Formats: sequence, C-alpha cells, structure tokens
Amino acid sequence: MKLAFLGLGVMGSPMAGHLAEAGHEVTVYNRTASKAEAWCLSYGGARRDAPADAVDGADVVFMCVGNDDDVRALADGPRGVLASMKPGAVLVDHTTASAGLARELDRRAKAKGFGFLDAPVSGGQAGAVNGRLTVLVGGAEASFRIAEPAMRQYGQAVTLMGPAGSGQLAKMVNQILIAGIVEGLAEGLNFAVRAGLDANLVAAVLSKGAAQSWQLENRARTMIDGKFDFGFAVDWMRKDLAICLEEARRNGSSLPVAALVDQLYQQVQARGGGRWDTSSLIRLLAES
Amino acid sequence: MKLAFLGLGVMGSPMAGHLAEAGHEVTVYNRTASKAEAWCLSYGGARRDAPADAVDGADVVFMCVGNDDDVRALADGPRGVLASMKPGAVLVDHTTASAGLARELDRRAKAKGFGFLDAPVSGGQAGAVNGRLTVLVGGAEASFRIAEPAMRQYGQAVTLMGPAGSGQLAKMVNQILIAGIVEGLAEGLNFAVRAGLDANLVAAVLSKGAAQSWQLENRARTMIDGKFDFGFAVDWMRKDLAICLEEARRNGSSLPVAALVDQLYQQVQARGGGRWDTSSLIRLLAES
Repeated sequence: MKLAFLGLGVMGSPMAGHLAEAGHEVTVYNRTASKAEAWCLSYGGARRDAPADAVDGADVVFMCVGNDDDVRALADGPRGVLASMKPGAVLVDHTTASAGLARELDRRAKAKGFGFLDAPVSGGQAGAVNGRLTVLVGGAEASFRIAEPAMRQYGQAVTLMGPAGSGQLAKMVNQILIAGIVEGLAEGLNFAVRAGLDANLVAAVLSKGAAQSWQLENRARTMIDGKFDFGFAVDWMRKDLAICLEEARRNGSSLPVAALVDQLYQQVQARGGGRWDTSSLIRLLAES
Repeated sequence: MKLAFLGLGVMGSPMAGHLAEAGHEVTVYNRTASKAEAWCLSYGGARRDAPADAVDGADVVFMCVGNDDDVRALADGPRGVLASMKPGAVLVDHTTASAGLARELDRRAKAKGFGFLDAPVSGGQAGAVNGRLTVLVGGAEASFRIAEPAMRQYGQAVTLMGPAGSGQLAKMVNQILIAGIVEGLAEGLNFAVRAGLDANLVAAVLSKGAAQSWQLENRARTMIDGKFDFGFAVDWMRKDLAICLEEARRNGSSLPVAALVDQLYQQVQARGGGRWDTSSLIRLLAES
C-alpha cells in the first residue's frame, strides 16, 4: 500500500516510522524540511516539498500536526492535500482538532470522491514510539477498513467511534476526564504533603481502591517530586480544553470543573510552565 | 482474643460478623438495641446496653459509627468506652471522622494506659461484606500490631499510615481524589451523550489509556443509565468533604475542585439525592 505522512513532530515521526518499518512505501512532508530529511535518513522513505506532491498517488494519507490552522495549511490551496488526493483514497487526520473541522473535511473529501477519517490519538510520545497508541476514529466504515491495518502499526487500540467528528469528540471526553482526575490528584497529594503524611505511601495504598486511576499510578511520584519536564504539555492541554469548551457551547454541556482546570492551566502557563506536563497543576497548590 | 464492636450499621455489622466467624469472642453494642439483637441472632455474640459494659475486659475495642458526635457519644461519660477500657487494650475507631478527634482520643487513651488507632475504611458496604476493605490506620506501631490480625478479617489492605490522625488524613486524600475523578467523569459522560456518541463505547475505549480510573470502570455504565440507588451516599460524601475542607483550612491546603464538588453535592441533596451514590453528580449536568 502506498502511504503518505504529513507532519513529522514528536508524534508523527515515530508513527510514520512504524509504517515504514512494516514495509509500506511512505512519502513524507514536513513544514520544516530538515525534519523530513532526517526522517528519510532514518527510515529510507521519500520526501516532497509540497503536501500535494507528497500525497500524489497515495492510497492512504496521514496528517499529524498541531491544531485546526495547521491542518488547514496542509489541506487547502493549490499545493494542498485536497487538491491531489486520488479517488478512492482515504485521508486520516491524527491531529487533535475540532469536530467541526472533521465534519467539514469529511464533506469536502466526499465531494472529491475520497474518504476522510478524524483519528486523534492518546498515549503520548511514549505510546507513539512503542506503537501503543489509542486511536479514536470517526468516519465511514468503508474508509476505516482501508486505513485500519496501517493504523494498527502504532495503535494498540484502534476503534471506530461513529460518524465523522466522533473521533475528535471522544478525544474531548478523554481530556475532560483527565482534567478532573489530575486536579483532584494534585489537590489530594498537596493536602497529603501539608498534612505531614508520607504522600508516596498514601498514593500506593489508595491505588488499591475507588480512588485508583492511571494518573495516580503513573504520575503521583513525579508530582510529589515536582518533576514536570516530560509528558503532555500544558500548552497542548489548553488547546484541547479550548476545543472541548467550544464544542460544549454548541451541544449545551456544562463543564464546571473542566472550565476551572483550564483556568488553572492558564496560571501554570503564566508561571512559565507551558511546556510542563499536565500534572504540574500541583505546582500551583504547592506555591499557594 | 476478647473483642468488642460498637456500631452495627451497614459497615459495622458485617465487619463484626467477620470477627465472630473467625472464632473471636465478640461483645457488641448498638444505639438501636434491636440491631444488636439481630446481629447476635446471626453471629452468636453477646450484647450489652451500654458502651462501658460492652468493652469491659476487651483486648481490642472497635467503633464504627457515623461522625465525630457519634464517636463522642460512645466514648464519653460514665457509661462510655473510655471509662472502662482496660490498660494495655487498644481502641480502634473505624468511623471516618476528623483528625482532631483522633488526636484527642489518642491523648486521652495514652493518659489512661491503653492504645488508640484511627482506622477509617474504604471499599463500601460490598467491601465490608466480602471482607475486602482498605483500612487506613493512624497511631502507634505497638497498638497496630495488637489490632492488625483482627482487622485483617475484613481488610484486604490494612496499612499503618503514620501517627495518630494519619488514617483520617489519608482517608481525606482518598475523598479529595474521588471528588475530582467523579465530577470529571460526570462532565465527560454527559458531554459524550450530548455529542451523540455511544457513551458506553467511549467509556470502554478510554479505560485503556491515561483517562482510566476505578470510577470509569465501575460507574460509567450506571451513570449513563441514570442508576444511583446503591453505593456511597451523597450525604456521607458531604460529611467527609466537610472534614477535608475544615482540615485544609488548618494545614493551608487549597482545594478548589473539592470545594466546588462539595457545592455540587449540595445541589444533588437539594434535589432529594442525599441517599444516591456519589456518581449522581451527572444528574445535575443531565438536567441543566
């Protein structure tokens, strides 16, 4: 199968690498050309200087960039992806973006005779490197069937959640859950430290009961130690929460805690923590 | 070992039952005498009409009641527990109560030559019935060693967290974590439903990643179905959160989300949901 991968950042680079290692012919494009060159040196694929050229003749095209604007920059215009996708092909967007953009690209793809899947991932850089991402997919089942085998090269769970936009909406649910979990964990661990408890012992014991969470098991120790130079950056979480809050206005959902946690992340950014892991919420509490 | 158990509610009754079934001689007391009678019919122990009489000669005495005031009603006065505990014995309080009360009872116990352990539990009624509670213990190690074998009859994890009050403080951390997790889950699932997603599918897929939690795995389905007539009641959660917020004033911890969730539980109570499970937070969102 002939593939194209556009966007070779910390996520896209290893994801495209898994496709090449699985024996696919992969043509890549990246806004900063030097990253595409480096990727080709590592994995042996070809690179092109424009999105339209990279996707020319591809059966499945993957995009993995920062936000809605970045996706539009790849997709639109005479040198963009939409200008040269072939009929019957499938365009997969791994960017965490708005559901509105997903629905728009789905309509435009249909009009041109190819398929579209919104397919944001979770699992972070480690998941991308280890090929253990969760891929939340929205779109038509026929398109899903075409792209799924390739996505399984880096996805341990690749699930069709519903029609176009459903992948993005499910990813939003994921971020809403995490916002509540991480802030609760930050408040609890900060309380434990101030109460004079052995916070690591508390975390270990509570992980056996109804307060258990992935975040408790994987982030309590680093939160207690004040280590945040890894993981999923606050800047990205704020981008995602902005998408959640905007979509919630549309569908009428109330998000009191997610909205509050978004504001708390603003305070982390104001303290220079935009690149810190999302667990850095505890820093605000430790310093207040 | 001669034991006494005071407080035979939904938690205390099965806990005392495990002690009797393990072959201990158990004398019981309950404010409503009919419950003590019923317990004796089931488990064959003896009952007394005053706390002081029930604990007379006991090596370890357990209390499991509703709140600080209930504990004081058992402990104080001429017919109270403290009046007739024997030197060298250990008083264990399984009530979720304030750390201040724990420290006070520890001091008063020491002055009278017996030990005290604050030992709130988590795991709910099911955990008490199945003997799979988590027991968070504060107090002296010598007292812990005396009472631990008995507590293992209903505790799958019985851990000494630190000096007097540490069990209560660790339980508070547990409730702070749960407040954030459950409200985040409520917001996420309500968003999923309003976004037109298959909320059960979303819950199943997200439980494989960084948004995973015990609450997601054990409460998502009932939250989606609007079932709340089971589990840990909102009234009890508010009592616990009041203790958390009061202790936080003392140790200087900031609890923005726990305080907000406490207010949301007030709204659940106002809608007649005081006896509903804590997961009923989603009801507020579904109806707003």
